[in-house]
Amino acid sequence: MERNQQIRLVRRPVGEPTVEDFRLVEEAVPTPGDGEVLLRTQWLSLDPYMRGRMSEARSYVSPAALDSVMVGGTVGKVVASNDPRFAVGDLALGYGGWQQFSVESAASLQKLDPAMARPSYALGILGMPGMTAYCALNDIGAPKAGETLVVSAAAGAVGQVAGQLGKIAGCRVIGVAGGEEKCRYVVEELGFDACIDRKVEALDDAFARHAPDGIDIYFDNTAGAILEAVMKHLRLGARIPLVGLIEQYNAVTAPKGPNLAPLLVARAKIEGFLVSDHAAHTRDFLKTVGGLLQSGKLHYREDIVEGLEAAPAAFIGLLRGANLGKLLVHTA
Amino acid sequence: MERNQQIRLVRRPVGEPTVEDFRLVEEAVPTPGDGEVLLRTQWLSLDPYMRGRMSEARSYVSPAALDSVMVGGTVGKVVASNDPRFAVGDLALGYGGWQQFSVESAASLQKLDPAMARPSYALGILGMPGMTAYCALNDIGAPKAGETLVVSAAAGAVGQVAGQLGKIAGCRVIGVAGGEEKCRYVVEELGFDACIDRKVEALDDAFARHAPDGIDIYFDNTAGAILEAVMKHLRLGARIPLVGLIEQYNAVTAPKGPNLAPLLVARAKIEGFLVSDHAAHTRDFLKTVGGLLQSGKLHYREDIVEGLEAAPAAFIGLLRGANLGKLLVHTA
Repeated sequence: MERNQQIRLVRRPVGEPTVEDFRLVEEAVPTPGDGEVLLRTQWLSLDPYMRGRMSEARSYVSPAALDSVMVGGTVGKVVASNDPRFAVGDLALGYGGWQQFSVESAASLQKLDPAMARPSYALGILGMPGMTAYCALNDIGAPKAGETLVVSAAAGAVGQVAGQLGKIAGCRVIGVAGGEEKCRYVVEELGFDACIDRKVEALDDAFARHAPDGIDIYFDNTAGAILEAVMKHLRLGARIPLVGLIEQYNAVTAPKGPNLAPLLVARAKIEGFLVSDHAAHTRDFLKTVGGLLQSGKLHYREDIVEGLEAAPAAFIGLLRGANLGKLLVHTA
Repeated sequence: MERNQQIRLVRRPVGEPTVEDFRLVEEAVPTPGDGEVLLRTQWLSLDPYMRGRMSEARSYVSPAALDSVMVGGTVGKVVASNDPRFAVGDLALGYGGWQQFSVESAASLQKLDPAMARPSYALGILGMPGMTAYCALNDIGAPKAGETLVVSAAAGAVGQVAGQLGKIAGCRVIGVAGGEEKCRYVVEELGFDACIDRKVEALDDAFARHAPDGIDIYFDNTAGAILEAVMKHLRLGARIPLVGLIEQYNAVTAPKGPNLAPLLVARAKIEGFLVSDHAAHTRDFLKTVGGLLQSGKLHYREDIVEGLEAAPAAFIGLLRGANLGKLLVHTA
């Protein structure tokens, strides 16, 4: 009788995972309950986010228990169904994990069109990675024709779609990938304008050469050194969708300085602000804040020093936090 | 005859400025040309951004030349006018710099209402710092009642306004300031809910205590250690207007990891993305990307490994960048 091959997490990796962190086991093929379906896995998607599952640290995915089956998106064929929505032989997109057979609730499955040319695409360009590329590029990147878009992990599942959609939107698109073969693929087959080989090129110089007027959008699949180099080449009003952290998934220690992983976990944003961009709001500001001040609803304190000659010491103190309230020099 | 006292930048500071970086000089009172006005400075604003002017590094302000008068916002009284828009005795907001007298073009000046209770407010709560607080809080922070807002440099010109506006918007507001006196001012006089003394409290613990459910908005005047601590307490969908970098204005070396200063210079944003938040776009995505794929306008490559037992090594390779295209395990 057929058995269910599974790959389980048996040890939490420190740094890069090794094959010893996994174990191949066999158990009985499970039986679907009411409203459930038994599927035989045809395609299993492997994605960088799975590294997060293997660790205990807080992430946007919860950690997997030790000795549990590794999770993952799958396309499977129905071999038994206890739900009227699925019949034997149907193809379905689910979350069966790293195993030959899985039982899933019918409600959590998505039936695939049998006419679909390549069912595996439901795990890629027409699934989570493609949707990631599409939504992050449009919703956060907001590409406009003529802008310069940089995509890291450009030959990957998400990157290849993001870059091509950028080209279709009229952007000049520069990929960053590891190795000559990937770079050639990205330029010759996907039609990116250029691709930087992060294994051999100095990133800062390469961005200066390929994006001499700066970068409008950086579709970031990696964070780390590529993000750091991009930061020196941002154009006014640049947008960086932070989509992945491939460079630090295996990291043992937190990066120095602000670790941007929490931005991804919280889907949060940091945005630079300069008041001179907001002159159109002056009237509204004066009306609102002036009104609140006049009615006594806003308090405000000034810290006044007398005489121009006192300005240098007062300014040095300001940078040390010595003043309380708005620092002014009275010179009249 | 009266002379024009000026304070000039005579040396670029390395790290914290010293009084020797400045020199007090006297020269003849300048004469206004056509369309220009001569003002006697009454109030000079001292602001942290001026530190950027003193250095040669690229910033959102251009560096001042050595031996030039330090720049700065001023309120002055007109003593001579060659422009019909200004009469002797008028008060005007300008950019006269660190000097007793300045000649400015009438077009660049803003006449102040002589009935204004405190003309110096035009340099503070009703000027650039107040407008910074108002616009950055509303345009980027987008406060909603019940949210938790953290404000750094809470007793400063910008911070005190930002926090009070947050209270008025219905937020729970936590200040961060240096020293007991400032913290008392922020809570007792400005009405913040709490204030963390960054000089004595452990920031991470303090945020855990004062914002147990996390931080929705961080109005960042400082970057550095406060930003780093805030990052561990972000709530889903948090917003961080990056308004100032006080902690690193005097820094001699760049911070480790991504230096966020370029975000401010470029008024750029980094925003975390997770595809599961965007399910509402699924139909639009499938139509657009599916259509492009079918018409041959999108290329897509898969990297397929055979058999479940090959999954661990393939996954390890994925994190190293060994694959080209979407990585899948074929198990049928």
